[in-house]
Amino acid sequence: MKARVTVMLKAGVLDVQGEAVRFALGTLGFGGVTGVRQGKVIELDLAENDRGAVETSAKAMCEKLLANTVIEGYSIEVL
Amino acid sequence: MKARVTVMLKAGVLDVQGEAVRFALGTLGFGGVTGVRQGKVIELDLAENDRGAVETSAKAMCEKLLANTVIEGYSIEVL
Repeated sequence: MKARVTVMLKAGVLDVQGEAVRFALGTLGFGGVTGVRQGKVIELDLAENDRGAVETSAKAMCEKLLANTVIEGYSIEVL
Repeated sequence: MKARVTVMLKAGVLDVQGEAVRFALGTLGFGGVTGVRQGKVIELDLAENDRGAVETSAKAMCEKLLANTVIEGYSIEVL
């Protein structure tokens, strides 16, 4: 089964990449962009076939590797 | 309004980051991970209030800045 993990910086943590994108969009003439946050998305192909097991595995992967839980939050979507 | 842009490498383009994550998950004891693709997600806060206009703006931003359309595909979700 497939799972999609989205990792974003927590609210309140300065998002330097997002700010750089916002600035660049401004210089390209895109007005009205009031905020940009950038994160990462990780699509996992897992051998497991049980939705619960996939979610448990993906959560463990986030806690151990995919997200820095001090400053990042994550969400898991089983596809 | 908010829009979420997801940018992923096109199928067939070597995803080095994804392969690195797959290898790292293996060394951490997560078996059964048959594939990993990593991309980026960009959340935009836009001043526009019309769904169509937001989608049009986000598409132009993808074409001009957010995605390298030679090797990357993107999808836009208006929230």
